Amino acid sequence: MCEQSVKALLEGVKNGNVSIADALQKMKALPFEDIDFAKIDHHRSLRQGYPEVIYGESKTPEQITCITQKLLEKGNNILITRANKEAYDAVVRLFPEALYNAMGRTITLYKEHLIKPQSYIAIVAAGTSDMYVVEEAYETALILGNEVKKVVDVGVAGIHRLFAHLELIQNAKVVIVIAGMEGALASVIGGLVDKPVIAVPTSVGYGASFGGVAALLSMLNSCASGVSVVNIDNGFGAAYNASIINHL
Amino acid sequence: MCEQSVKALLEGVKNGNVSIADALQKMKALPFEDIDFAKIDHHRSLRQGYPEVIYGESKTPEQITCITQKLLEKGNNILITRANKEAYDAVVRLFPEALYNAMGRTITLYKEHLIKPQSYIAIVAAGTSDMYVVEEAYETALILGNEVKKVVDVGVAGIHRLFAHLELIQNAKVVIVIAGMEGALASVIGGLVDKPVIAVPTSVGYGASFGGVAALLSMLNSCASGVSVVNIDNGFGAAYNASIINHL
Amino acid sequence: MCEQSVKALLEGVKNGNVSIADALQKMKALPFEDIDFAKIDHHRSLRQGYPEVIYGESKTPEQITCITQKLLEKGNNILITRANKEAYDAVVRLFPEALYNAMGRTITLYKEHLIKPQSYIAIVAAGTSDMYVVEEAYETALILGNEVKKVVDVGVAGIHRLFAHLELIQNAKVVIVIAGMEGALASVIGGLVDKPVIAVPTSVGYGASFGGVAALLSMLNSCASGVSVVNIDNGFGAAYNASIINHL
Amino acid sequence: MCEQSVKALLEGVKNGNVSIADALQKMKALPFEDIDFAKIDHHRSLRQGYPEVIYGESKTPEQITCITQKLLEKGNNILITRANKEAYDAVVRLFPEALYNAMGRTITLYKEHLIKPQSYIAIVAAGTSDMYVVEEAYETALILGNEVKKVVDVGVAGIHRLFAHLELIQNAKVVIVIAGMEGALASVIGGLVDKPVIAVPTSVGYGASFGGVAALLSMLNSCASGVSVVNIDNGFGAAYNASIINHL
Amino acid sequence: MCEQSVKALLEGVKNGNVSIADALQKMKALPFEDIDFAKIDHHRSLRQGYPEVIYGESKTPEQITCITQKLLEKGNNILITRANKEAYDAVVRLFPEALYNAMGRTITLYKEHLIKPQSYIAIVAAGTSDMYVVEEAYETALILGNEVKKVVDVGVAGIHRLFAHLELIQNAKVVIVIAGMEGALASVIGGLVDKPVIAVPTSVGYGASFGGVAALLSMLNSCASGVSVVNIDNGFGAAYNASIINHL
Amino acid sequence: MCEQSVKALLEGVKNGNVSIADALQKMKALPFEDIDFAKIDHHRSLRQGYPEVIYGESKTPEQITCITQKLLEKGNNILITRANKEAYDAVVRLFPEALYNAMGRTITLYKEHLIKPQSYIAIVAAGTSDMYVVEEAYETALILGNEVKKVVDVGVAGIHRLFAHLELIQNAKVVIVIAGMEGALASVIGGLVDKPVIAVPTSVGYGASFGGVAALLSMLNSCASGVSVVNIDNGFGAAYNASIINHL
Amino acid sequence: MCEQSVKALLEGVKNGNVSIADALQKMKALPFEDIDFAKIDHHRSLRQGYPEVIYGESKTPEQITCITQKLLEKGNNILITRANKEAYDAVVRLFPEALYNAMGRTITLYKEHLIKPQSYIAIVAAGTSDMYVVEEAYETALILGNEVKKVVDVGVAGIHRLFAHLELIQNAKVVIVIAGMEGALASVIGGLVDKPVIAVPTSVGYGASFGGVAALLSMLNSCASGVSVVNIDNGFGAAYNASIINHL
Amino acid sequence: MCEQSVKALLEGVKNGNVSIADALQKMKALPFEDIDFAKIDHHRSLRQGYPEVIYGESKTPEQITCITQKLLEKGNNILITRANKEAYDAVVRLFPEALYNAMGRTITLYKEHLIKPQSYIAIVAAGTSDMYVVEEAYETALILGNEVKKVVDVGVAGIHRLFAHLELIQNAKVVIVIAGMEGALASVIGGLVDKPVIAVPTSVGYGASFGGVAALLSMLNSCASGVSVVNIDNGFGAAYNASIINHL
Repeated sequence: MCEQSVKALLEGVKNGNVSIADALQKMKALPFEDIDFAKIDHHRSLRQGYPEVIYGESKTPEQITCITQKLLEKGNNILITRANKEAYDAVVRLFPEALYNAMGRTITLYKEHLIKPQSYIAIVAAGTSDMYVVEEAYETALILGNEVKKVVDVGVAGIHRLFAHLELIQNAKVVIVIAGMEGALASVIGGLVDKPVIAVPTSVGYGASFGGVAALLSMLNSCASGVSVVNIDNGFGAAYNASIINHL
Repeated sequence: MCEQSVKALLEGVKNGNVSIADALQKMKALPFEDIDFAKIDHHRSLRQGYPEVIYGESKTPEQITCITQKLLEKGNNILITRANKEAYDAVVRLFPEALYNAMGRTITLYKEHLIKPQSYIAIVAAGTSDMYVVEEAYETALILGNEVKKVVDVGVAGIHRLFAHLELIQNAKVVIVIAGMEGALASVIGGLVDKPVIAVPTSVGYGASFGGVAALLSMLNSCASGVSVVNIDNGFGAAYNASIINHL
Repeated sequence: MCEQSVKALLEGVKNGNVSIADALQKMKALPFEDIDFAKIDHHRSLRQGYPEVIYGESKTPEQITCITQKLLEKGNNILITRANKEAYDAVVRLFPEALYNAMGRTITLYKEHLIKPQSYIAIVAAGTSDMYVVEEAYETALILGNEVKKVVDVGVAGIHRLFAHLELIQNAKVVIVIAGMEGALASVIGGLVDKPVIAVPTSVGYGASFGGVAALLSMLNSCASGVSVVNIDNGFGAAYNASIINHL
Repeated sequence: MCEQSVKALLEGVKNGNVSIADALQKMKALPFEDIDFAKIDHHRSLRQGYPEVIYGESKTPEQITCITQKLLEKGNNILITRANKEAYDAVVRLFPEALYNAMGRTITLYKEHLIKPQSYIAIVAAGTSDMYVVEEAYETALILGNEVKKVVDVGVAGIHRLFAHLELIQNAKVVIVIAGMEGALASVIGGLVDKPVIAVPTSVGYGASFGGVAALLSMLNSCASGVSVVNIDNGFGAAYNASIINHL
Repeated sequence: MCEQSVKALLEGVKNGNVSIADALQKMKALPFEDIDFAKIDHHRSLRQGYPEVIYGESKTPEQITCITQKLLEKGNNILITRANKEAYDAVVRLFPEALYNAMGRTITLYKEHLIKPQSYIAIVAAGTSDMYVVEEAYETALILGNEVKKVVDVGVAGIHRLFAHLELIQNAKVVIVIAGMEGALASVIGGLVDKPVIAVPTSVGYGASFGGVAALLSMLNSCASGVSVVNIDNGFGAAYNASIINHL
Repeated sequence: MCEQSVKALLEGVKNGNVSIADALQKMKALPFEDIDFAKIDHHRSLRQGYPEVIYGESKTPEQITCITQKLLEKGNNILITRANKEAYDAVVRLFPEALYNAMGRTITLYKEHLIKPQSYIAIVAAGTSDMYVVEEAYETALILGNEVKKVVDVGVAGIHRLFAHLELIQNAKVVIVIAGMEGALASVIGGLVDKPVIAVPTSVGYGASFGGVAALLSMLNSCASGVSVVNIDNGFGAAYNASIINHL
Repeated sequence: MCEQSVKALLEGVKNGNVSIADALQKMKALPFEDIDFAKIDHHRSLRQGYPEVIYGESKTPEQITCITQKLLEKGNNILITRANKEAYDAVVRLFPEALYNAMGRTITLYKEHLIKPQSYIAIVAAGTSDMYVVEEAYETALILGNEVKKVVDVGVAGIHRLFAHLELIQNAKVVIVIAGMEGALASVIGGLVDKPVIAVPTSVGYGASFGGVAALLSMLNSCASGVSVVNIDNGFGAAYNASIINHL
Repeated sequence: MCEQSVKALLEGVKNGNVSIADALQKMKALPFEDIDFAKIDHHRSLRQGYPEVIYGESKTPEQITCITQKLLEKGNNILITRANKEAYDAVVRLFPEALYNAMGRTITLYKEHLIKPQSYIAIVAAGTSDMYVVEEAYETALILGNEVKKVVDVGVAGIHRLFAHLELIQNAKVVIVIAGMEGALASVIGGLVDKPVIAVPTSVGYGASFGGVAALLSMLNSCASGVSVVNIDNGFGAAYNASIINHL
């Protein structure tokens, strides 16, 4: 149970701002209420500096701060993904060092020092509309302890733009390719580099893009052999994968 | 009613090779049996040399030769698409000048002289597996009276191969792009030329290519603006479109 | 970086209307922040009067005005698609000559004089509900330097209405057909004209129209040979294609 | 249990042509083995001349003849749909008056005299490839006691062909429209007649026709109000519906 | 052009409530602006009392009143479907006799006297959640000049409820069956009556109902032969069909 | 008809707060208006303590209280699912003993004493995001008269957490497994217990989870033999099933 | 490794009937070649008489007999599902007591005596075309030690046939409902019994049945609460579930 | 052009075994006929021992041997995937050292010596039915120069079998997980290792597995973070990816 939240509720009850019924229901919605902490993951702490990750979607600001507080007790860095501005406002009130990436919708709290490998991860994106996924991947890769280089707005319809950055991409240890619409960038880059390429389809598009399905299918069928794929808009997963590879 | 076929059937009946019941059923299946010939298309004969087109899929060799015979009476060139070897054998027996493109599954009969425009159509294909669509488009474009240039096996996973042929592609009046799997070639070419690009997804691929759907969606969502799309494997339709444009 | 926007932000910070954190985040979201301008397209300027195009969807008014300002420095005409009223209000404040087509959701700025071909593009639409796509196509075709004629509300359920405008449609150099629901208009017109027909499925409909998929499939399977298709609601793409053909 | 078949099996066992194990398994597969005949439908015999219908798909010739024999005992006419040539050969051996429509894959046995209404059903089809559904609908409508008129090969890509038969279609009491590919014919006819239109999508087509789905969606989204739809290739169901209406 | 609306706009401009730019854009959005009235349907007026139908979805109250005014000049009854409360408020201000069915979202204006056939249409629905489609069908059938009887909340999970109303259903000339979720009611009723059954899948449900697709597929695959289907939630189309049949 | 609601409406009319037109329309929307109460289910009262169930989705608070009042007359317990806070506020005003589970969106009213079997139902869930389905299942199982034990946040990505609760799960008489995303938990548990496993896919996820379809397909294809599946998010249905089994 | 098969291969090599290359490849395809037998399941032997189950699909007769031989060493009963006639011929040659259900495609070998519960499982099927699933479920339930009663050909289009067997169905401890096409039978039975209903969609149907998807969706959306669902054609899984429940 | 094949054809023509027409058509189908060899990939030869890869699907034995001959001239190792027995027989006749993996459908020719990294790739598969993908991945990984360890038949329904091999899996540098049906194995392993996991869905399954779609979606939605996915049945692509990572 999250003490701080409970205390705030009880005070609300005491001074009449919160009804007893409301207080009961709010307490019910607090996370982990009946969960034995033996259930906490251990394999994640193998490497020094490994952060705890909170998936912020559909969690209330109250729930997010409560979980954050709990996890900080272990002294780890924290990454909160899919966090809206309200969640950030609630977190930064308690932890002023919390950083917000509005476009990537991430909150990060750095508690531990990170030792990064020499090699870097390249994040390549087709269009400016894909930036929300780029930034999620970027913040994830950073807090997992990686150097990251970004190349954006290099969609295949203007392929000379891509070639201007080819060396930077080819020198990365692993490449994340982010694209919506027809997702063709993954195949083109897959044909130009000899490194693992992790492709992220985005939900950018309309009509027959079907919320990212067109890009997803395109990437799964890539004629370039070194391409693997993660879920639509899953910038976090791509960066997590890339980080594992970059630390090998 | 197709006289020649009926005569053959009746002779079979007479000499006992065909039962009466079988003869009746075969006659029922002959094309156009109860169709007034007022229904024949007129708009198609606007341009000199315009061929008659027969869609051969699921037609018997007997039906195909019967229709061919009928149409030849008008003196037009003939294009039969989706024709298997059996159909060709039946046609060539009657019309020895008939030509077969085994890969494109087309039969062509040239009766009229064709006057071709100066400009040409470029057909660009991603892989050798797409050749069956390339050849259907090629034969269609030829019999519609066009000069055609083919560039094949230039998929985006080896993009330098494409650049070696760029000038030929850019000088065409209209470009047909044929690709299966992720269909990314349409977007890349769409970004490199300032001509109409007609994209044909092919059913080449497996798994999540879903019989050409991945390439189809990819092409419909192309980030290059000058790309329009026809049905999966529809080499005929693409060439028909390209020919109209090449004759403008 | 977009100077004007940054200046406005800094003034807001100075007079206390904007917090430093907010300013930082807004600056992060400005377009092109770390993008070398070598990446700008060159192939698009081949023809005199060619406009720059901005895809307005999911861009803030601030981002749109910033990009507009940048692009106007080159002296080109500007077309902004998928632009809402807020975007227009922001643009027109800086550039009073900006025009808004509310139904087509386009903003246009005419800087260059356009020389149009003699031939024209016909835009034919099935119903009044398809007008938002008609207008997007119309404004796009205009700024790309074309004469355009519109025929609307001629759906196939009242086919005599279509015949009343047949001559106008048949005399166009290229025809754009826009239809939602079952999208049958493309096939009917494809059978009546001998010009390239570019079909645009719209998301008009409900239930089993699946946001335009029914019309899309209908058009891809058109039994008329001269029909090619663009993405659902892609009035811009259809007009872009038609304009290339009209300028051939 | 079907006596005749059992007897044949036992004789096979006796003279050694059939092993006991095989005989046992064949008997297991005979229809209705453990089904109380109280389960037989009664509502179907309301009208004089109503036939019994057997759905032949995936039934063996043996099963079909056995059921036919059983049903003939009631003196009704019989319609067997989706019947292949082998099934017909088996049936006609026992009942020489059985008729086969090879294209429609129907077997019919006429035992009762039919009194037909004055009005007729029109069956209109887009292409010759749709004939297998046309013939299934035709034979069904006939044996249900209707006059039927067929108009085929009047697809919307050559709409003047349709107009040549308009009066015949408009004078029907109910119209069945059969079309594959984009299925646009249903909407066009729905807009031209003031009678119930029953649309049958066919699986004719390839690529994005998805086995008839494109035509099905097209018909469900028809902008003409008087159109209702049955399953893909369901000529039987359309004729059954039309017959009910024609007898009202 | 719709005079009344234009006049109101001009007055707004005169007294300064509407800017000139706004006025221009609103006028652009008015219906039929450049449409020759030769395009108006004639086949719809065959039967006395036939109403004009306006599809209200995505039309503004202003557009709806404007079209209504135009159509009333012909003296016909009017049916407006998919009309929200705002549309009704606008219509009733001008035409106080307008009636609103809030659940069915229909507006009706009765100008002509209707002569109804003796026979009636039965509307049968599975659950109270399907009432919005029931009411649309009901109002449509009424204004098309039919007697209608409704039986609701008789879903197949409590089948004895259905049997209590069986006689009423069996005595109808045509039956409309409306059901969401698994849509099984159409098959059950199709097996119990010998009249045409028009099935309407509704979008009632969640999860794997996919907005009515489950019910739609269920109805298309009905094992009862006399069932035809219209689009999801298309109460209007079902009633229009039923009315044609009821007037035969 | 629901007297209380009608009375309130009439009072509103009398004192001028409600217009006559509004009153008429509201009355039309009241449930069961023209439904003979013979249609009420009888098979549900077989077991003592069986509750009445109201599906609250898309019902107004007014409709819900009206139905609740009617059903309470029979003295049964009441379960209202998919009920929002407004519905609860309306119900609790009339029936102060009504309980609300905000996360599960259920309202429960206990009128009858429940006799529970000795055995219990285990509800196992993959993540805290699935809690809304867990709570719906939990409240359903309780009011159907079952002991229930919950184990949550034991997703397969941290499988040691699951093993810590294995004994509790294996000792249940029936197990409900609730999971979104890839839904793998059902297969793992299905392989570890020898009891019926009822799997509930949830709509938790994004991108290629397609609103629960990924989890649904995963569960339907479970390689563990004892798993059956209910609709996405259908916690109620799973608990209803489990309760039947727990009472066997 | 499977000794018997290897021996046979080696003899073939010795006498020249099998080439060495062929022998090597066949040995590679033998099951379990490099699999430590620690991997064998233990939880399945909890109950006396529990059979071993082999999924025969895409296994060669050789592989099946080899696995059968291995498993028989433990003395358990054996069930082989999806087994064709060739597989049976191979098995029965070695184990003459093997039984084949040709329609259900199952092979069974009874080694242990089974003690059955007093209660029985009812298997109810819509049509004779669903018999292949009925028989798979039937043989599975038998070898798992259950009494089973079958009711077939009681589809909802002739609902009086179902009522004739209602008592038998209602007295079962658990009911398996098997139906293709629209799968409505599950909802109807779910509303008539107060026992767990396990629904099996079958791939019987054509067109929009999409290989069983229509029935699957129908069953998942059942308005009857006590219905859970297994995969299309999964008679085995349904019977496995039912057996667990029947033994509770 | 492929000399050897042409020579054989010409000899056939000379001795009358092949007609001239047939010879012409066969020559047309030979690969690379008009393709400048400048198009050959260069990036693939970066690492010593890199093989040439031929995708054998839908290529004739003649085409495969012709390409093989061409590529062997460069002295590289050769991998042919999706090769049937006929293709192998043709290849081995010319190159007796060619090896065939019948289950994996691969042909391999080793010409160069391979230097392998110390680390190894683990291939883990759910069932014996997935072996065809396991073997394709295995042969691919071998010829790309890797040590490989296989663990098969460890599906999640018997999870203790997986744990027996956990150490071997955890010590790999990269893990390939291959599973059909519900594909849950990827998530479970993803949660147990801290290495990159490349998941391959297989088309093993039936009904709602939709040819591997269920497993594909399951893997894309994996709740374990380190999982990326390749196309259905794409054992080659997974091994290619894994090999790149293993050589980093």
